[in-house]
Amino acid sequence: MTFTAPIIDDITQPALAARLQHLLDNKTKPLGSLGQIERLAQRMGLILGTEAPVLREPQLVVFAGDHGLAARGVSAYPSDVTWQMVENFLAGGAAVSVLARQHGIGLTVVDCGVRHDFAPRPGLVIAKLGPGTADALEGPAMTSEQCQAALANGAALVKELPGNALLLGEMGIGNTSAASLLMSRLTGLDIADCTGAGTGLDASAVQRKIGILRAVLERHAQAQAPLDALAALGGFEIATMVGAVLQAAAERRVIVVDGFIATSAVLVASHLQPAVLQRCVYAHRSGERGHALMLAHLKAEPLLDLGLRLGEGSGAALAWPLLQSACAILREMASFESAGVSRQEASAAAQAAVR
Amino acid sequence: MTFTAPIIDDITQPALAARLQHLLDNKTKPLGSLGQIERLAQRMGLILGTEAPVLREPQLVVFAGDHGLAARGVSAYPSDVTWQMVENFLAGGAAVSVLARQHGIGLTVVDCGVRHDFAPRPGLVIAKLGPGTADALEGPAMTSEQCQAALANGAALVKELPGNALLLGEMGIGNTSAASLLMSRLTGLDIADCTGAGTGLDASAVQRKIGILRAVLERHAQAQAPLDALAALGGFEIATMVGAVLQAAAERRVIVVDGFIATSAVLVASHLQPAVLQRCVYAHRSGERGHALMLAHLKAEPLLDLGLRLGEGSGAALAWPLLQSACAILREMASFESAGVSRQEASAAAQAAVR
Repeated sequence: MTFTAPIIDDITQPALAARLQHLLDNKTKPLGSLGQIERLAQRMGLILGTEAPVLREPQLVVFAGDHGLAARGVSAYPSDVTWQMVENFLAGGAAVSVLARQHGIGLTVVDCGVRHDFAPRPGLVIAKLGPGTADALEGPAMTSEQCQAALANGAALVKELPGNALLLGEMGIGNTSAASLLMSRLTGLDIADCTGAGTGLDASAVQRKIGILRAVLERHAQAQAPLDALAALGGFEIATMVGAVLQAAAERRVIVVDGFIATSAVLVASHLQPAVLQRCVYAHRSGERGHALMLAHLKAEPLLDLGLRLGEGSGAALAWPLLQSACAILREMASFESAGVSRQEASAAAQAAVR
Repeated sequence: MTFTAPIIDDITQPALAARLQHLLDNKTKPLGSLGQIERLAQRMGLILGTEAPVLREPQLVVFAGDHGLAARGVSAYPSDVTWQMVENFLAGGAAVSVLARQHGIGLTVVDCGVRHDFAPRPGLVIAKLGPGTADALEGPAMTSEQCQAALANGAALVKELPGNALLLGEMGIGNTSAASLLMSRLTGLDIADCTGAGTGLDASAVQRKIGILRAVLERHAQAQAPLDALAALGGFEIATMVGAVLQAAAERRVIVVDGFIATSAVLVASHLQPAVLQRCVYAHRSGERGHALMLAHLKAEPLLDLGLRLGEGSGAALAWPLLQSACAILREMASFESAGVSRQEASAAAQAAVR
């Protein structure tokens, strides 16, 4: 199965951008006084192609998969936690379950390659590429055929989702390692700057993790092209997410990027189709080392900075009401004219001189 | 009318705090991985005195008043904007109107002393102390009787409000000046470090503003005690808010502090009753110069940092869903035991050594 990346248009629309800015500047508030919410409103308007954006039926997808590299001790948790947490998502007890429920966000869990067989049930999509990836220190994490299938799975999944917003979530013991590897390979930053404590390694375990990841990068020195890097360094859930991001971008859905792993999938997708980034909103700056640098590399401006490092899409769900606020501000706030409110003085200095 | 500040208990409860921490640590997530949301959940539990906090019928109150000092050119907008914006709040067109509606937050506007006569209507409370404060450069902004009446008005207002959470908002052309003056007087910081652009002064106008405020502080050098400072330096809306904060704290409501002006009211209240601060949650770090320093002085950890500088309670309303999330996490997330999820490895290092 070969995946053909959809064409993703440049949605830069200077005329619409100017109309959106004019609208925002004429709302009853000091110029620019809603700060980042105004830039978010601009972004919502440009993605959805309207001066009156409405977010409909948001969908949070948790992409789950296991990692061969986890057996090397790169995580503080055993691989079994991946399938146990999938059960927890489906039972409604995980953080992302609680937050999605709070905000009326649809929740879908995708088994992209968990080392466990799940009974089928509502809310679970089986799109399994294998019982976890292979150990990337011994060979590629996945074959290029598996990688192509993952991309196609992700795209097919998004095509079936209602609504116009996709919130990215993930679960996979060991997947901060895959994200760090992809970040280092695609940005050129040293692996030490891309690697953190994940779910809670101590300082010496982080140093061992960096050593293992450095060896993995050397092992796959030839895997430089984005899809070669993705297959070699892995993550079934990351590869499936890349396909989902490309499809969502092609459909002009608002893509709400969660933390370190979700951002690594966006990074890969942006190396295939740069215009993907025009559709992205960054929910938060994670406490995971590397995320701040990755966001800076993408020139991303995250909404929240709460020291989150849970994944699952929990940060995307927490930030979601801010996107709704930005749209509501555009649609519902009065203008100076409509409300009969006086404008800012042409020169405050002139008034000061009156005294 | 003399205001008697209610007694505000110390609600530090080590046993409850320990139970809350135990609950959070046993939720299905890596230890501490919800970052500031976990500290917020602790705070919600302690304020409401329960391991299963529920926020009910949140109330946002916009305290409005005019300032004699505004005639000195300390604001980029004319005083008439205060009453025009009150009309806008009541008509549903202001930012805070839109955001309160989005989140189902009750909205009340209080005329604490606007230079305008409003027709009575639902959602508007008339608690007017005068047609704006006096010019603080010529004498005290208000008499001590007016100050006492403002405190009593604020307390009486809160007593009538349903629910268990108070979100603070304000409107008053010139009120960043009053807040800067109170901040400088009560913290001892130089007025230049406490003064910013407000609704949008340019750099030279800010310098003039600082000069005027320095002269006001010299004029009222004797007004050192909190209530003397409050009366001299003013703000009918700030004084009324101080009374509201004291009453809300006495009732153990969750107090959601908005930006620079709302924080200045909390600062004054905390100088009267330090335990007020135990009931406060700080919605955001404002773009107004001085707010970051004021928050640091209060050892406050704001939730958002979006460059907001609008006031009205808009930041409090934007942050509100995070408080609901924190409570939902406590109430609804599964524990490791209940979900059958494996614990963090005792030593990740030990596992690493296995390889």
